[in-house]
Amino acid sequence: MVIKEGLRPGGRSARVQASVHCAVRELLEAHERSSVTVPMIAARAGVTPSTIYRRWGDLSALLADVAVARMRPDSEPADTGSLRGDLRAWAEQYLDEMSSEPGRMMMRDVQCSPTPGYCVSILSGQLQTIVDRYPGETAPSVDRLINLLAAPTVFRILFSSAPLAVEELHELIELALKT
Amino acid sequence: MVIKEGLRPGGRSARVQASVHCAVRELLEAHERSSVTVPMIAARAGVTPSTIYRRWGDLSALLADVAVARMRPDSEPADTGSLRGDLRAWAEQYLDEMSSEPGRMMMRDVQCSPTPGYCVSILSGQLQTIVDRYPGETAPSVDRLINLLAAPTVFRILFSSAPLAVEELHELIELALKT
Repeated sequence: MVIKEGLRPGGRSARVQASVHCAVRELLEAHERSSVTVPMIAARAGVTPSTIYRRWGDLSALLADVAVARMRPDSEPADTGSLRGDLRAWAEQYLDEMSSEPGRMMMRDVQCSPTPGYCVSILSGQLQTIVDRYPGETAPSVDRLINLLAAPTVFRILFSSAPLAVEELHELIELALKT
Repeated sequence: MVIKEGLRPGGRSARVQASVHCAVRELLEAHERSSVTVPMIAARAGVTPSTIYRRWGDLSALLADVAVARMRPDSEPADTGSLRGDLRAWAEQYLDEMSSEPGRMMMRDVQCSPTPGYCVSILSGQLQTIVDRYPGETAPSVDRLINLLAAPTVFRILFSSAPLAVEELHELIELALKT
């Protein structure tokens, strides 16, 4: 979600955005993605198509914006009591979510966003939260966790015939934890 | 390049494919991608648009086919005399190629291919060639090299604000070589 500075949270602009995002999410659940159009979204959100074109430019930019907003996690990463346990829980959930059909669509849409880098900053934030829970341990850097856990998860889904197996994910976690 | 079984190499079908692929590559070099159309490609390739539609379905499928064909390397991976050296040369060249504008376009197009997994099989073939040169050494598995070298390279280009630095790539190679 791109919040422009100077916008009053909860103001008219924020309400338009929330309503349009919500319309997109609902339509994508109910319809084939290729059949969703800007006029359909506008009708459902209770705005005019020109409001959407003015604000987002075109359909792919709007879908990218919604996808980036959906990347934001609903909750803190699970706290299992150990660094290894937290990383396993996080990585398994990430693999699950990204392998799903909505996850694949999200990754495709995010690439059309003008700021796809937002993706890694969200992941980094979550991994930093986990690492910060264990100040006594020599934890791997967040960059290393991104390279060794998030990257293979996504790369294999997008470009390989088979996603990462959970055992491979566990091996990568062990490798990341080795100092 | 999808070679269907039973096609005679060098036959009419292969010549149509070569000519259409060549037209796409030339047009993409000279024009904005969004302005390239099937009739333009057909005119340049000396075939009718319906030949293209019949064979590839639509423009994005054709672009994906060309992108997959371009993934095939022109030559064997460089032979530097050591496993570490070969991996460095290969990984640095891969990072270079994928970071370029044509590389980014290629990655985007390949995702529209019905067989994006072909991508990893090409990379695996190149890495296997390297590993096979050093039968005496305990080399990492090709899957490990894909996960630790190719995945972070591509993931960071697509989803982060900064690509992998060469130093990070070297660290990942050291990690991959650790038994």
